[in-house]
Amino acid sequence: MGTPSADVAPPPLSPRKRLLAASISLFYRNGIQATGVSELCEVAGVSKRTLYQLYGGKDELIAAYLAHLREKRVSPAERNLFDDALAPRERLAQLFDRPDPARFRGCAFHNASVELTMPGHPATPVIHEYKESFERRIAQSAREAGCKEPEELGRALMLLFEGATALATSTGDLAAFDAARPVAEKLIGDAAA
Amino acid sequence: MGTPSADVAPPPLSPRKRLLAASISLFYRNGIQATGVSELCEVAGVSKRTLYQLYGGKDELIAAYLAHLREKRVSPAERNLFDDALAPRERLAQLFDRPDPARFRGCAFHNASVELTMPGHPATPVIHEYKESFERRIAQSAREAGCKEPEELGRALMLLFEGATALATSTGDLAAFDAARPVAEKLIGDAAA
Repeated sequence: MGTPSADVAPPPLSPRKRLLAASISLFYRNGIQATGVSELCEVAGVSKRTLYQLYGGKDELIAAYLAHLREKRVSPAERNLFDDALAPRERLAQLFDRPDPARFRGCAFHNASVELTMPGHPATPVIHEYKESFERRIAQSAREAGCKEPEELGRALMLLFEGATALATSTGDLAAFDAARPVAEKLIGDAAA
Repeated sequence: MGTPSADVAPPPLSPRKRLLAASISLFYRNGIQATGVSELCEVAGVSKRTLYQLYGGKDELIAAYLAHLREKRVSPAERNLFDDALAPRERLAQLFDRPDPARFRGCAFHNASVELTMPGHPATPVIHEYKESFERRIAQSAREAGCKEPEELGRALMLLFEGATALATSTGDLAAFDAARPVAEKLIGDAAA
């Protein structure tokens, strides 16, 4: 008997999770500097006092937002790259699939590095670690695919992926990914030969 | 006789030029969103009223700042790329010279695209035209160097240059340019063969 609809309703998100969710939505879509603490708190439904109590300040929330993105692997390209069920060569090839045009605004980590010019910002180590682990995983996939000099190939594919992402952000045209794919395939083919 | 020192003193910069100079210094170094109108006016030594009278608003000043950078070719990589006195192959190779670490903060045009998320921003066409003309000039240099399929090669070199610039911005490590160079040389070599 009882009230099943009430029984199965998900528990409400904690203020911490609501702040992270608001950060993901606002920081990525509108930019980090353009998003004020008041807007974040309004969207998250928390007081400014709660934000400062939980995170210490906006800069620490930015670092937590990026650490959360890194942990959750939110972009399909990243999820696939780290998916052991995919063949190593598939992991490399899918980097150059066009991202979803409705959501794409470049790499959240790179964008944060553009916006955060303060030396010693708490988000900086998160950005560095993210880029290093992304490149290591590309090199690992190249190694598992049997490619020669997988570190060099991994670095080259990373540069092409970063270039496609940056150029698509600048031009608003995802064709940068289509242009990068045959270059990547040529480099992979040469290293596999 | 007169006062020679007064005769040779340069004429004071106009408020318009002082605002552009302040924009170049503050927008590039500290970011566009992080730079407020008050700070711009203070550094330029003009009133807010003057800024609005001359440019119409901050968004139009951002567009004028980028148009000015494009016209003046402020980065050495860009100046060399458009320098007809350099051999075409030199123009391509120098793209992967490390930029000045004391000044480098990535590409001003790309950074603006990251920061300006408002649809229809007046700076957007300036950014698009800049990236298109940069890529056309790379392809032209590849053609003049006698490379096969210069458009394809130009696109690939553009992607590597954008990738090195973006990755160096994210990681704070100019070694991304060193990594891009041998990949570029291999592609140029293959297209020249």
